[in-house]
Amino acid sequence: MKRTAFFISDGTGITAEALGNSLLAQFDSIQFEKITLPYIDSVQKAQEAVAQINKAGELDGARPLTFDTIVDSGIRGELSSADAFMVDIFGTFLSPLENELHSSSSYTVGKSHAISRDGGYEERIKAVNYALENDDGARTRYYDDADVILIGPSRSGKTPTCLYLALQYGIKAANYPLTEEDMEEQRIPSALQPHRQKLFGLTIDPNRLSAIRNERRPNSGYASLRQCMMEVSEAESMYRRERIPNLNTTDYSVEEISTRLLVQTGIERRAR
Amino acid sequence: MKRTAFFISDGTGITAEALGNSLLAQFDSIQFEKITLPYIDSVQKAQEAVAQINKAGELDGARPLTFDTIVDSGIRGELSSADAFMVDIFGTFLSPLENELHSSSSYTVGKSHAISRDGGYEERIKAVNYALENDDGARTRYYDDADVILIGPSRSGKTPTCLYLALQYGIKAANYPLTEEDMEEQRIPSALQPHRQKLFGLTIDPNRLSAIRNERRPNSGYASLRQCMMEVSEAESMYRRERIPNLNTTDYSVEEISTRLLVQTGIERRAR
Repeated sequence: MKRTAFFISDGTGITAEALGNSLLAQFDSIQFEKITLPYIDSVQKAQEAVAQINKAGELDGARPLTFDTIVDSGIRGELSSADAFMVDIFGTFLSPLENELHSSSSYTVGKSHAISRDGGYEERIKAVNYALENDDGARTRYYDDADVILIGPSRSGKTPTCLYLALQYGIKAANYPLTEEDMEEQRIPSALQPHRQKLFGLTIDPNRLSAIRNERRPNSGYASLRQCMMEVSEAESMYRRERIPNLNTTDYSVEEISTRLLVQTGIERRAR
Repeated sequence: MKRTAFFISDGTGITAEALGNSLLAQFDSIQFEKITLPYIDSVQKAQEAVAQINKAGELDGARPLTFDTIVDSGIRGELSSADAFMVDIFGTFLSPLENELHSSSSYTVGKSHAISRDGGYEERIKAVNYALENDDGARTRYYDDADVILIGPSRSGKTPTCLYLALQYGIKAANYPLTEEDMEEQRIPSALQPHRQKLFGLTIDPNRLSAIRNERRPNSGYASLRQCMMEVSEAESMYRRERIPNLNTTDYSVEEISTRLLVQTGIERRAR
């Protein structure tokens, strides 16, 4: 049986989505249809949400689940008239936290928080620009400013990882593709030599790399398994020889690569 | 008094961070030092975490807060020996959810879930590549593939928004900067004409725009308030005249711009 799950917030809904998705992922056997309702910041919008929730329940033949981070008690009150299994994310934890901290939360006093431009926001946008301008070895003269420089064969995951590190954590990450010439030289490319303590290597299963490259350039030498095996083997031997910390990205998402990189390097988040 | 907060997970820690940060943001008056401990996936790592938590508590003179999404009961058991105020994110909600769904969660049976490469992961990486390759009007011939095409003055937030939409939601977003020439023509640029139903306009307070541009090119004509006022006014008048849905980004983060764009356009997430 299908169940519908709503992630509801007076803001972006990102927290409700993150927690709701994590919880639902624990129930393999059930199929969920997921709907996010962000910016439910008025009683009228809450009434519309209630209508949508109840309609989904009628269609499913089972009451929907809702995960909400609504702060305002009037809006929450309206929402709670829905025929749904409701998970009150903030309400559940804030009262015990208030006791622990001997302090009233803004939730209790009915004040909402936008994530808005605090929490290192400017750092994050600057880091995105840095990642874009120092992508793919395009420029090497700003490596002094880098927090980390990713190296690895083409399509091993460097660029998406740099962008995620920037957007999520405000970390300035450049990346430099190891070319065949670099491999043949059997040493760290000269542009990277002064920054070797910032290097982090990515590697990947050659079969997976070949599949990814084949989507870009089908049946090319670049995408051939032979070429991929050679490049991966040379990169890995450089990491070993030069003791460059590194990670095999084959089974990891960008989030996992990024967070594991932070653990391995000890780089501090500039924003969260 | 400072309190230390730990976000602890056997995976990336992203859910624990998202919820923990949202909850702590409700307590304005207290200063928190935040530490993420991801990949706590063995009893030994849990013991090390306990030592770190207890040490922070001694330094602070107050017990730390922990927000965890640890699934394994052996690891959780070890963690719970710490002298901390512990928020068991999964445990709190999963038992009621199990009752509602008449189903056992993987949590109960001790199985962990990596976020890994499911949930539209390939879509997300393809969308990142799409955003990079169709940034800043670089190419216009792949606009047929776009889910949305952002337009607006230079530095109004188009590129970071496209990247966020791609990384978070797998949405293919191109962007096209409105140039002075475009403005003077007083019509939608010809490359955009066939795709006008995909257009979404960004606008921004001219003072803010001038400040952003001044960081890039100090004291340039490009960054002058006069130029910014002119470009913003022309862009806004184009949005009105052509009835292009649009958003003022001045007070919004990339997350807010992106989620509001989804609400206004009705574009569906391809991944979550």
